[in-house]
Amino acid sequence: MTKRLTAGAIIALAVGAFSSAAMADEGMWTLDNVPVEAIGKSTGFKPDAKWLEKVRLSSVRLAGGCSGSFVSPEGLVMTNHHCVSDCVAELSTPENDLMAKGFLAGGRAEERRCAGIEVNQLTEITDVTDKVAKATEGKTGKEFADARRAVFAEIERGCSGGDANVRCDVVTLYQGGRYHLYKYNRYQDVRLAFAPEFGIAAFGGDPDNFNFPRYCLDMSLLRVYGADGKPISSPNYFPWSKAGAKPDEATFVTGHPGSTSRLNTTDQLAYLRDVFAPATLMYLSELRGRLIEFGRRGEEEHRLALEELTGIENSLKVWRGRQQALVDAQFFGDKAAAETELRARIKADPKLAAQVGDAYEQIATAMQRQRALAPRYLMLERGRAFDSSLFSFARLLVRSAEEAGKPNDQRLREFSEARLPALKQRLSNPAPVHESLEITTLAFSLSKLREEFGPDNALVQKVLGKKSPEQVAEDLVKNSKLGDPKVRLTLFEGGKEAVAASDDPMIALAKLVDADARAVRKAVEEEIEAPVEAAQARIAKARFALLGDSVYPDATFTLRLSYGHVKGWAEEDGTQVEPFTTFAGLYNRDTGAVPFDLPASWEKAKGVIGMSVPFNGVSTNDIIGGNSGSPILNSRAEAIGLVFDGNIHSLAGDYGYDMRRNRTVFVDIRGMAEALRKVYKADHLVKELGL
Amino acid sequence: MTKRLTAGAIIALAVGAFSSAAMADEGMWTLDNVPVEAIGKSTGFKPDAKWLEKVRLSSVRLAGGCSGSFVSPEGLVMTNHHCVSDCVAELSTPENDLMAKGFLAGGRAEERRCAGIEVNQLTEITDVTDKVAKATEGKTGKEFADARRAVFAEIERGCSGGDANVRCDVVTLYQGGRYHLYKYNRYQDVRLAFAPEFGIAAFGGDPDNFNFPRYCLDMSLLRVYGADGKPISSPNYFPWSKAGAKPDEATFVTGHPGSTSRLNTTDQLAYLRDVFAPATLMYLSELRGRLIEFGRRGEEEHRLALEELTGIENSLKVWRGRQQALVDAQFFGDKAAAETELRARIKADPKLAAQVGDAYEQIATAMQRQRALAPRYLMLERGRAFDSSLFSFARLLVRSAEEAGKPNDQRLREFSEARLPALKQRLSNPAPVHESLEITTLAFSLSKLREEFGPDNALVQKVLGKKSPEQVAEDLVKNSKLGDPKVRLTLFEGGKEAVAASDDPMIALAKLVDADARAVRKAVEEEIEAPVEAAQARIAKARFALLGDSVYPDATFTLRLSYGHVKGWAEEDGTQVEPFTTFAGLYNRDTGAVPFDLPASWEKAKGVIGMSVPFNGVSTNDIIGGNSGSPILNSRAEAIGLVFDGNIHSLAGDYGYDMRRNRTVFVDIRGMAEALRKVYKADHLVKELGL
Repeated sequence: MTKRLTAGAIIALAVGAFSSAAMADEGMWTLDNVPVEAIGKSTGFKPDAKWLEKVRLSSVRLAGGCSGSFVSPEGLVMTNHHCVSDCVAELSTPENDLMAKGFLAGGRAEERRCAGIEVNQLTEITDVTDKVAKATEGKTGKEFADARRAVFAEIERGCSGGDANVRCDVVTLYQGGRYHLYKYNRYQDVRLAFAPEFGIAAFGGDPDNFNFPRYCLDMSLLRVYGADGKPISSPNYFPWSKAGAKPDEATFVTGHPGSTSRLNTTDQLAYLRDVFAPATLMYLSELRGRLIEFGRRGEEEHRLALEELTGIENSLKVWRGRQQALVDAQFFGDKAAAETELRARIKADPKLAAQVGDAYEQIATAMQRQRALAPRYLMLERGRAFDSSLFSFARLLVRSAEEAGKPNDQRLREFSEARLPALKQRLSNPAPVHESLEITTLAFSLSKLREEFGPDNALVQKVLGKKSPEQVAEDLVKNSKLGDPKVRLTLFEGGKEAVAASDDPMIALAKLVDADARAVRKAVEEEIEAPVEAAQARIAKARFALLGDSVYPDATFTLRLSYGHVKGWAEEDGTQVEPFTTFAGLYNRDTGAVPFDLPASWEKAKGVIGMSVPFNGVSTNDIIGGNSGSPILNSRAEAIGLVFDGNIHSLAGDYGYDMRRNRTVFVDIRGMAEALRKVYKADHLVKELGL
Repeated sequence: MTKRLTAGAIIALAVGAFSSAAMADEGMWTLDNVPVEAIGKSTGFKPDAKWLEKVRLSSVRLAGGCSGSFVSPEGLVMTNHHCVSDCVAELSTPENDLMAKGFLAGGRAEERRCAGIEVNQLTEITDVTDKVAKATEGKTGKEFADARRAVFAEIERGCSGGDANVRCDVVTLYQGGRYHLYKYNRYQDVRLAFAPEFGIAAFGGDPDNFNFPRYCLDMSLLRVYGADGKPISSPNYFPWSKAGAKPDEATFVTGHPGSTSRLNTTDQLAYLRDVFAPATLMYLSELRGRLIEFGRRGEEEHRLALEELTGIENSLKVWRGRQQALVDAQFFGDKAAAETELRARIKADPKLAAQVGDAYEQIATAMQRQRALAPRYLMLERGRAFDSSLFSFARLLVRSAEEAGKPNDQRLREFSEARLPALKQRLSNPAPVHESLEITTLAFSLSKLREEFGPDNALVQKVLGKKSPEQVAEDLVKNSKLGDPKVRLTLFEGGKEAVAASDDPMIALAKLVDADARAVRKAVEEEIEAPVEAAQARIAKARFALLGDSVYPDATFTLRLSYGHVKGWAEEDGTQVEPFTTFAGLYNRDTGAVPFDLPASWEKAKGVIGMSVPFNGVSTNDIIGGNSGSPILNSRAEAIGLVFDGNIHSLAGDYGYDMRRNRTVFVDIRGMAEALRKVYKADHLVKELGL
């Protein structure tokens, strides 16, 4: 499935987006720069300002990395099951496994809080490019990074005014070509109204993931509550279409694509191909193997492993798809050719050439440095050496204690004042930490630390001492008290003194490695990220001069609009893939064996369900990870489905889009309505949805 | 450790071996073409014919993929622990775990048969290039492959004369530049005399693997028995040197390097880099993860997982090292530059240019085809979809029944008459098949089959039906009778009728997939291997014309001589690595935690062992996987150590050699003697070794 920020991906096989204006149906457009003419030409419908405002206010972001939308005036939010599965797992107990059994609140009183879920609604976009440009003018390297961080923090603080119900982010668009301020309403009391069984939400499991024909009810319904403990009023929402969509009908997707690398240089892509992808594939593959066997220890372990594995297997497929695109000589050659063309056009214009200067060479140098630093950076700073919730809490506490004492503009970005409310919410999440799973993932990741640095490395010896990774993991997890949110909050509120005085072993580990982790992060930020961003900004400006905003910026987990059509595709061997599946196909595919086994509720409903009702569908919309949970709309801004994945050809989408075969996969609105009525008998929800 | 054929590897960072004569200390030389002058220049010693004959007859090959040598006149063979660990594991029981406790036969009567080990001693080398050239003249593609297979079988049959005690192989050298017939004495009654505990044999485990300084007693002693049930007489053997070797002393390694790809074109290397290495790293990583967790189920599973993991982790390190060399722009660029140089020299000579023709382009085309066929080929024909001993037996039985009915020269090569004795020996191996491990690896590999081909694939549906990979694996393993060698032999002897009548489910699976597996093998042989070999032979002839046999052929698991010196190396950061470690270093490294925990016998011997005695050492000899178990000799043909690994810089050795840092890692003879005396009190062996 097209999952959260960290996982998703989408692409194709040919086009460098920068060499010409976007091709038909391509693009993830910011809501303040929608290509109305192109949309009109492609779909016959030109969205106006009112339409755009309605869809913006009806769309929401789930702070964990997904999209969603209001579907009733009473705060009901539609998103994917896989976007709320952390919550469903957290609400589960060994006796009452909601992942397996599903959940339907009989009424609002039964709706259950999802502590980890925050809903953001985009209320305003402001261009702050000039402010940022002024603050960073003439600066490079560390100076540039420091100045930019400082002006970001200043702008964000000025925007939110310290209001915990408002979130403000400065967003870097066009690789520094533009900076926009995004202002959101924050909703933190979000409750689960409905989630089907995992067995139907992810029917076909990893084998079917990123494939189509498909048969998944990957949906859930949440409700947003206000400070008064009552459902909020949401006058802007997407009514469910009763008719659904026809083949070739125009479709629109609003959502929050996480990130793309379509404007990256070939040196950047080569780093991903040669270093990041292989290391990631090996890491995740071994972790997958460990968790599959871990899940065989017993019922409880099976349940715990399930949620972890879904994300891991998704990331594996994504990175495998990307790696395969990057080693494809044709694909990489096309990207290189497009780059050569752009560089030739820049060179032909003396003013642009002077502006761009040695930007490409600077990026190449930074990528050489990244090849050297990446293993250390990924291990120590990006968590690959410490795969443990308890460790994440510990690092958060150790760092927030230290960062809190600094001026806002000198802090690590995630500890700026504007981020503190979200931080505190994370620490107070009452979801239990599962000891056996923690030990397994931490032991695994500590073994990777030793593998990467070698047993004679000083840091490895500090961390492991005379013990094995397994022994260290067990000692840490069993003796840490950070699984208790009260303990975490006490340490958080206690600040520097409390953290310094703590004898929690996980806090001790976080302290032990912090200097090394910060050092490599600093090196990456100053020697790689800052020069690359500065160089990209120079290239971006030249691209702007040549193409204007006829192109869209790379994805940034901010709200985007994509347009397209309901449409199947032709495989290379000539096979035509039809745009819809039906419930008949679902029942036909049921083998009774995981992951092709239907839940009991579906077996039971077999006699009453409409076999010809459309269940899943595909469209040409250009999306990527982070778009999970997006509504798919018709031109009347009615929901005709719920986006949950891309097809297999979409996996190169991080680097480009190919309309011939890149497809969005969605749950059809008619399938969802049929399921709510016939399988779940969720009459109160059916009524609220106006069906 | 530099392990068997499938695993090992060795290289470096710069040189294309074909652009000039081999550099100092580089090379794995066939015993009939030893560069005497170069050796004399490098070491001050020029081996003569007598010396070469003695070392040839004192060296042996272990048919499973290792090397060894006679070390007494009574058939005593020295090799690595990791070369006999399959046998040690097979001789173990849950009550008596010889892997953990080690094994020392009190006398010859207590020596225990290793059913899976066969010893080969090279008695004769004959050049048959003309015969092969005549039989294949003017042929290409399938015709070439058929003709070559036929003439190979004919030559081999003529050589062995059906004598089960003789093995004859036609060996392709210089990628078809030369064909030699290698004739061996076969010894099939091989018994274990001594094996230390796994904990000291592989001290430091995977973290220390391919590293140095090192502290492993990776040794074992076997004894070869004749048809009369008595130890054979072995007048040619390597006495153990009492003095050992000094730094910078000349060293010689005889052994059987498995394979190298130093003469491959860049298109072939790019295939390995882009397709084979990533797929292999992912496959092995997940399998590793599964087996690590499998080993936590209990004592028995721990023991079973141990042996499997050692090989898997070794292969992982090897392929990771290779992949890192191949994505290194400098390394790959140097290989490409050397290729460009050779092609320019060929082009400059009209006769050579005509001879080579489009050979490079043919290889490039074949590599494109291989990129497409590899996933299917690796899955169906190379066992990645069916990782199970029982399946291997089943395939062997199904195919031998079919192949036996064909003329010798039309059979699949591994079923030619000359191979039948080894085949039968494999089927009669009484080593138990462990149900839980079989189910785990088979379920894993069936899940990879489904992942690779997709759940809608016709073959996947035939194999899995309506079951999960786990269910299918469990059904197959629990209901198959092929774990019993008697059942296997009965089916083997019964031939086509018996196999056709069998209702064994594993036989049924082997039949079910055989047509598809054979088809993809045929495609690979005819569309890739044959044209590539023919093209390589054309390039090889041109290279010969330019360089003669001043270069050595790529490794082929045939006997080779390497020369060099005891020598440490300087790391890039200037650190000097000394050439020897001592027992003091071993005890200092003991943490008590796996894999750095010393066995009890070593803790006990702490007071009596000589702390300054050399334990492991390094030399510049050019070796690769298959050289495991090789003796390392001084110029008097005395053993001064036992080769068991290469250092980390040796991992690119498949593609090239760099004398600056590529090192062979060996157990010092003085360390072995001290261990036999002080730790194991193996007085009878000490006496037999003349110490």
